[in-house]
Amino acid sequence: MEKLLQGGNILLGVCYYPEHWDKKLWTDDLLRMKKNGIAAIRIAEFAWSIFEKTEGVWSFDFFDDFLNYTIDNDMSVIFCTPTATPPAWLTHKYPEVLNADINGNLINHGERRHYNYNSPVYLDYTQRIVEKIGEHYGKHPAIIGWQIDNEINCDAPEFYSESDSKAFRIFLRKKYMTLDTLNDAWGTVFWNQCYTSWEEVFVPRKTNKNAHNPHMMLDYIRFISECACAYVKLQSNILRKYIKEGVFITTNGIFANLDNHRMMNESLDFITYDSYPAFAYCLTENQHDLNNLKDREWSRNLTEIRSISPRFGIMEQQSGSPGWTIKFEAPQPKPGQMTLWTIQSIAHGAEFVSYFRWRTSVMGTEIYWHGILDYSNRDNRRIAELGEIFTKTKALEEVAGSVYEAAFAVIKDYDNVWDTRYDAWHRRLENASEIGIFHASQISHTPMDYIYIDDLTSVNNLQKYTVLFYPHPAIMTKERTELLEDYVKTGGLLIFGCRSGYKDKSGKCPMEKLPGFLRNLTQVDVTDFTFIHPSEETVVANWEEAEITVPIFNDIIEPLGEAKSLAFYKNNYYAGKAALVCHQYGQGKVFYFGGTFSYDVMRAFLEKLGIENPNKDLINAPECCEIVSRKKGEKKYIFVLNYSKNAVSINLKKEMRCLFSRKKVSGVFELIGYGTIVFCLD
Amino acid sequence: MEKLLQGGNILLGVCYYPEHWDKKLWTDDLLRMKKNGIAAIRIAEFAWSIFEKTEGVWSFDFFDDFLNYTIDNDMSVIFCTPTATPPAWLTHKYPEVLNADINGNLINHGERRHYNYNSPVYLDYTQRIVEKIGEHYGKHPAIIGWQIDNEINCDAPEFYSESDSKAFRIFLRKKYMTLDTLNDAWGTVFWNQCYTSWEEVFVPRKTNKNAHNPHMMLDYIRFISECACAYVKLQSNILRKYIKEGVFITTNGIFANLDNHRMMNESLDFITYDSYPAFAYCLTENQHDLNNLKDREWSRNLTEIRSISPRFGIMEQQSGSPGWTIKFEAPQPKPGQMTLWTIQSIAHGAEFVSYFRWRTSVMGTEIYWHGILDYSNRDNRRIAELGEIFTKTKALEEVAGSVYEAAFAVIKDYDNVWDTRYDAWHRRLENASEIGIFHASQISHTPMDYIYIDDLTSVNNLQKYTVLFYPHPAIMTKERTELLEDYVKTGGLLIFGCRSGYKDKSGKCPMEKLPGFLRNLTQVDVTDFTFIHPSEETVVANWEEAEITVPIFNDIIEPLGEAKSLAFYKNNYYAGKAALVCHQYGQGKVFYFGGTFSYDVMRAFLEKLGIENPNKDLINAPECCEIVSRKKGEKKYIFVLNYSKNAVSINLKKEMRCLFSRKKVSGVFELIGYGTIVFCLD
Amino acid sequence: MEKLLQGGNILLGVCYYPEHWDKKLWTDDLLRMKKNGIAAIRIAEFAWSIFEKTEGVWSFDFFDDFLNYTIDNDMSVIFCTPTATPPAWLTHKYPEVLNADINGNLINHGERRHYNYNSPVYLDYTQRIVEKIGEHYGKHPAIIGWQIDNEINCDAPEFYSESDSKAFRIFLRKKYMTLDTLNDAWGTVFWNQCYTSWEEVFVPRKTNKNAHNPHMMLDYIRFISECACAYVKLQSNILRKYIKEGVFITTNGIFANLDNHRMMNESLDFITYDSYPAFAYCLTENQHDLNNLKDREWSRNLTEIRSISPRFGIMEQQSGSPGWTIKFEAPQPKPGQMTLWTIQSIAHGAEFVSYFRWRTSVMGTEIYWHGILDYSNRDNRRIAELGEIFTKTKALEEVAGSVYEAAFAVIKDYDNVWDTRYDAWHRRLENASEIGIFHASQISHTPMDYIYIDDLTSVNNLQKYTVLFYPHPAIMTKERTELLEDYVKTGGLLIFGCRSGYKDKSGKCPMEKLPGFLRNLTQVDVTDFTFIHPSEETVVANWEEAEITVPIFNDIIEPLGEAKSLAFYKNNYYAGKAALVCHQYGQGKVFYFGGTFSYDVMRAFLEKLGIENPNKDLINAPECCEIVSRKKGEKKYIFVLNYSKNAVSINLKKEMRCLFSRKKVSGVFELIGYGTIVFCLD
Repeated sequence: MEKLLQGGNILLGVCYYPEHWDKKLWTDDLLRMKKNGIAAIRIAEFAWSIFEKTEGVWSFDFFDDFLNYTIDNDMSVIFCTPTATPPAWLTHKYPEVLNADINGNLINHGERRHYNYNSPVYLDYTQRIVEKIGEHYGKHPAIIGWQIDNEINCDAPEFYSESDSKAFRIFLRKKYMTLDTLNDAWGTVFWNQCYTSWEEVFVPRKTNKNAHNPHMMLDYIRFISECACAYVKLQSNILRKYIKEGVFITTNGIFANLDNHRMMNESLDFITYDSYPAFAYCLTENQHDLNNLKDREWSRNLTEIRSISPRFGIMEQQSGSPGWTIKFEAPQPKPGQMTLWTIQSIAHGAEFVSYFRWRTSVMGTEIYWHGILDYSNRDNRRIAELGEIFTKTKALEEVAGSVYEAAFAVIKDYDNVWDTRYDAWHRRLENASEIGIFHASQISHTPMDYIYIDDLTSVNNLQKYTVLFYPHPAIMTKERTELLEDYVKTGGLLIFGCRSGYKDKSGKCPMEKLPGFLRNLTQVDVTDFTFIHPSEETVVANWEEAEITVPIFNDIIEPLGEAKSLAFYKNNYYAGKAALVCHQYGQGKVFYFGGTFSYDVMRAFLEKLGIENPNKDLINAPECCEIVSRKKGEKKYIFVLNYSKNAVSINLKKEMRCLFSRKKVSGVFELIGYGTIVFCLD
Repeated sequence: MEKLLQGGNILLGVCYYPEHWDKKLWTDDLLRMKKNGIAAIRIAEFAWSIFEKTEGVWSFDFFDDFLNYTIDNDMSVIFCTPTATPPAWLTHKYPEVLNADINGNLINHGERRHYNYNSPVYLDYTQRIVEKIGEHYGKHPAIIGWQIDNEINCDAPEFYSESDSKAFRIFLRKKYMTLDTLNDAWGTVFWNQCYTSWEEVFVPRKTNKNAHNPHMMLDYIRFISECACAYVKLQSNILRKYIKEGVFITTNGIFANLDNHRMMNESLDFITYDSYPAFAYCLTENQHDLNNLKDREWSRNLTEIRSISPRFGIMEQQSGSPGWTIKFEAPQPKPGQMTLWTIQSIAHGAEFVSYFRWRTSVMGTEIYWHGILDYSNRDNRRIAELGEIFTKTKALEEVAGSVYEAAFAVIKDYDNVWDTRYDAWHRRLENASEIGIFHASQISHTPMDYIYIDDLTSVNNLQKYTVLFYPHPAIMTKERTELLEDYVKTGGLLIFGCRSGYKDKSGKCPMEKLPGFLRNLTQVDVTDFTFIHPSEETVVANWEEAEITVPIFNDIIEPLGEAKSLAFYKNNYYAGKAALVCHQYGQGKVFYFGGTFSYDVMRAFLEKLGIENPNKDLINAPECCEIVSRKKGEKKYIFVLNYSKNAVSINLKKEMRCLFSRKKVSGVFELIGYGTIVFCLD
Repeated sequence: MEKLLQGGNILLGVCYYPEHWDKKLWTDDLLRMKKNGIAAIRIAEFAWSIFEKTEGVWSFDFFDDFLNYTIDNDMSVIFCTPTATPPAWLTHKYPEVLNADINGNLINHGERRHYNYNSPVYLDYTQRIVEKIGEHYGKHPAIIGWQIDNEINCDAPEFYSESDSKAFRIFLRKKYMTLDTLNDAWGTVFWNQCYTSWEEVFVPRKTNKNAHNPHMMLDYIRFISECACAYVKLQSNILRKYIKEGVFITTNGIFANLDNHRMMNESLDFITYDSYPAFAYCLTENQHDLNNLKDREWSRNLTEIRSISPRFGIMEQQSGSPGWTIKFEAPQPKPGQMTLWTIQSIAHGAEFVSYFRWRTSVMGTEIYWHGILDYSNRDNRRIAELGEIFTKTKALEEVAGSVYEAAFAVIKDYDNVWDTRYDAWHRRLENASEIGIFHASQISHTPMDYIYIDDLTSVNNLQKYTVLFYPHPAIMTKERTELLEDYVKTGGLLIFGCRSGYKDKSGKCPMEKLPGFLRNLTQVDVTDFTFIHPSEETVVANWEEAEITVPIFNDIIEPLGEAKSLAFYKNNYYAGKAALVCHQYGQGKVFYFGGTFSYDVMRAFLEKLGIENPNKDLINAPECCEIVSRKKGEKKYIFVLNYSKNAVSINLKKEMRCLFSRKKVSGVFELIGYGTIVFCLD
């Protein structure tokens, strides 16, 4: 039985649906998988009816039988709970288990994820089936791990059923105890929204413009996240009763309105991601944005995943075009792209890569979601590429257990992430800076991490990084400020963008001089602020010899105490005022920047802070290549990934060992289009 | 009493609403119609309340009276059943007769076509009123024909009422007998959609993304078509009990989700079309597409109509701007356009052209749907143009009974047409090829037919054409393959585009090497396939000396057996692979082309196949003109239609008789802007 | 106690929410207001729950207490009825009080204006609370006036609840007495919409395309307006029972589907407007239209307000960025813009300008709707600007009571305004001409008025203007024609655009030669008409030596009797036909123009009519400045408002007194960016 994510190997897997295929194909499928390097398969995530065809009529024969095949063919299995798609008989008998839209229209049977997390009936049925399956398969020798449900919060991360309103009331009573406290926290005196009975409180419902109370919305998303986490925990707790030691529990993907870190810590052994970079090439996608990194954008998603667990798995890795019958028209991955995207996952920390899916479905909404094999089942160029990938991942096994080397990190926290969902002012800034920072990081070869902080984060967690950006934390608390102060005091460099610290935990705006709780740390006084209309002159500032833009929004700032202004606005009505202030605080420094972090602003910061391209003495590669370095003891691994279809020239400045050729190399050489290469500096 | 579509005349008609006007206007209206060539009027299609003002209170006085006027004024009448607009009292008393949207919201009284085809109540009321009207007017001497309902499936070709779900279950039980068969046909094992009781089956209902099971959707459209056909047949059967021999039954327009050929064969004597080319000029329409044929596009619709019956009528021919109060702002037809569009209809086979409408409505949603006369009732330029048209149609009477001469045909079948409704991958290809083929046909003066095939089609039906295109028949069956094999074997040329033959009758994808059932016939092996993103380099292929594009989607193909590659990709990752393969099969040839049929691809095919511009030795006309030739015994008629506002130069290479001037003509002459002319080669 | 709008002063106010702030802030707030010139505050418009926390539990302590503070600080108060936001307990207990969308989905608690005007329950609760508040506060010494509700018909000017359908039936029974009359008025014979019972009549409900009967829609909007007016009157009547003489009643804003003039005359002492010119700068607004006047467009809204009452108040004047959490991202007003927009209001007749709001809300949907003060409560540049504004308004006090001098007026009437809501053909013309006329007026410094006419308008009302434009009065009546004839007969110049006079009062199209009732007055015969597609050649006409465009729609016209053609089409199929006809009628002239009034058409009219730039002998200013002149006895005041951010040069051709500097000035001087200046010609 294979072990995953133990730091000793890099394994390949595949998603398989034995219930979709004639049993006669099973043996051949398993043999061909093995032959091409597949070590594990994921099964059963949409198979409720196979276990319980009609209510209470249980059968385990089908998967018992199939698991025997896997044993016979020495194939490890990741088994799923099938709760993402409740059967027709269940939702028809109990429509209350269904999710609804904001108008209260039910989301009916016939697709995926149409249930809600709060229906007592559905929680019962969930418990029952997870118990049954856990009990029956928990100790099965073929099973190395479990996936709970499928893509939690995918398809619909918002819930509007009656059960959700009931559960929301319980959540709020627990949080606020009294309605007075809730009314105060939500500022319901505004627009006379004051509640006088818990029965008057609902999840959001249709209003004139759906401009709901933003403080309610923040709690509503916290509630959704809590429900989702509890739902996963419910299943995890049951499974843990039955599974053997060493068998893992995971779930796949990261989706909106969900604290993935909490879910992971509470219920999972590690997270697995579903990586579909070909979405970047859908025919309806605009490919002409200047800053469009296309499939390389998925490295940002993998950076998110790394923040949850530095080593992780890919449960669904793209192996062919995506496609539902109603949308997602896209080209097939070009020869080499399947490999490129696999190595992209591994470079960021994946030690298990499972392809979606073995063979393209011959029925249903996903007949165009192409797997490794086509409908015909014939050998094709993608299965050939799988074979090559297998060779490469074998050569990469020593990388397993290494650690990604980031030159800086960006701080995130769920309250601020969720606040942007319904706050267009906050969202515009965050989105712009998220794109700008990541693009600058990629193009300048300056690797970055995300670090999510919460009430348990200690200064040690932050001290892993010498430089931290916290772009626009609108919501700030005293406790968080103290954490950040500790970080700077002990030598850290911390950079804030505009609009930091103007909201409290409930999303209200304290009557404080801005940047609120951050005033002491930053020693900045925000005296005025404004959006910049796209039709206005670009706002620029002088930062020593350089001229930088200060885009989208401007805080007009003044240094307090011993803080110093580093850059000054050159135009708009606040020309001459400070745009960037630096405060030496203890052994570190904190910077407050009056704008958003666009690509060029960020390039200026990386250069001024002296952290740009940390591997520049080892390797040169053009901008179309991502360079990743990983550390393992004394060894340093360098990945070069060419996202362009054209060959590029790489310059290795020190002699290194190529993991693929097993030879020492140095100097200039060519990397083919979509090519990847990995070196070790022993 | 006039006879329509007997091949002996070309008659003009008009849509008239006696119930909209003061009775004092009737005589003058009928006299002016007569004077301007109108031979027949259509009446009563929205007049339910005139017959049955409140439930069970019947009155036939109004139309009895009006029909006496038509007798007195020697005007023939086409009488309608008024079921398109059930009265307020009916839908208010029985809301179940209403259609609904996908969320179950009822489609209320106040517009048109708000009923569903499956409400037992509405079927009763339909039966009752058609019996009443049939009994009363069936043998009326003024009535030469009947129109059933109005524009079947217009406005809303989808039905979501409770009655529809009930009827859908009956439809499915009849088709599949058991739920197991249905589950298998729909592949419900995918996403655990398996049904365990018929009560769990519904017409589509709201889901998260409305990405319904595509096999269900295909059956759902078949069901809608069957319901619509049955509804027309119900009415037709009743009317046939009452009408005299020689009186015809028809209905008007062609709309979505409806097998018009079946409806015609089951219930009608011929089809009539509603031709509104001015839609091409609505102010909201983009007029800058390079390939935009504007009003000339309506010749494509008329080609569809010809496929249903080679000779047909126009029930509603544009005579003024279209316009609802809420939309459809458009210029008035320019002087000459009303004539142009009339001759366009006749060129394609219309032997009856009835204008919509006599006088513009002075009330209701259609006050801007301009008729021949304006509100004022004064003589205007459009009635003057009607007089000229009358003279021209008289001159054209000898054309009646002639047959359209197509150089090739495009095969269609309803399963594939309907499959494109919910399959975006299939739809993109079909739409592109439909436009490309038709545009090439028009601009190169190479006339074409559509031929719809079904289980009853014999090889003789196909043998009328030496060249057939079947662009992208995703759905293919063994029976259909045999039919096509017979056609090629006996000398036909048959051309397929990419993505042929990968689906079965249920829309699932058989585990076969592509192109599936077409493999034997085409002797092609599709080894790989991909969409091309608009931002990618245009894919081109060498076809002998020519370079052609292979747009949108590419099948990468290899010839089998004795088949030969004719064209080869020049770029993308499959450069050098075949893009076009030809297989000599019996006395014919079959071509498999790896892309879609864009305008320029199609021009290449027409030229290579030697079928371009078959009348080039008779006549030359610029691209802005449509040339139509029709055959009647030894006589050949040539229509030239100038869609441009500018005069053009025509070169008649043989002496011919001009039907309008009644003179022999030849050589070069000028055709005015919007001008039309018809010649006969005796 | 301050008196407003008595012509003797110009006062400043502010919107304040004592219930939003700690009581400890009240005194400081009131003192700082006073210090910066604030004379009055508006309170309580969303405070229902403060008075009646739960059903029947009344308390007046809070505002009693606060009003004592205002007395102590010598601050006048405008008190509001709080009916715009019914409390949660009310709507939860009686969901029938809620408005609904067209599908019948309720508009729930949690925003604003979610009630309907016709729920008997809500009318009861409204009456109760207005009685209670009126009784308690009616004679309070601090209160100088009352605002009823808040922004009537804002957020949702359409109502679809069950109560609305019931009330609509009553409205219609009263209007039409019998269903036969209603059926006739609505032309329900069209599409068989005939009603046989009042119960079958509803407010608009979902239909296939929501293309409702347009005559019903016209009555539906009249009904909405009547309900809104009745609702305001209900409250006004109650308040009048309690308030002291000299205390005024008003309401704020002008919104759709509402006869503001009627509301004003029935229930209010004057209207107040909510002026937010910064909407023009929202980040989602396109700023690149050539004719985009941006914030200057608000002068058009103020022109509307002037038509309701020549002197008026501003209840909410922009003092910071607008912003809801879900939308309206916009820059802060630039330094000077707050002043500019205040002077803009005063130039158009405001004698009271109340800013929205004192301090930016720290909670709720409007945390980004910035007030004078920021969250921090610190002094900022906007409160500093308020101080300067106070000085300026003091200097402007002599202007109070003066009258705006318009060079011409545009006639409007509510039937035609409302007709454009659901009539896309009519709307396109009206919108184009509204923009064209206003832009020409602004850019050429030719001030204009709107004059709304109704059945009570007399010729004296019109005779205030020598020139009147009535751009596209589709709906025309005999009575109105007579009024217009009187105006022209006695020397007026009256100009119509295309499409005049083709509808009657019910929106139906009489069977008359166009322009219908206007035929006698205009002596024009419209023989044909057509839209012009944007892709067509621009249609132009010769008007004496000038060439003008005749855009969007063309009436092809002929003069009758002694009328004369002044301009002739040069192209399209009606080249050579008249485009402009003038008829000398009595002592005046009437013009009929065949197109819409675009900017350049309008410039031609202003020049030809000799009314362009009436103050050109007094002052020259560039196009970016608005020039307003006001008359008071022998004195003439001239306002110059510079909407550009750049300084401009002004030339004063006569010596005048500058109200700000109190000096006599003349000749050329500079006006800074966003600067304003006011002169008096004594």
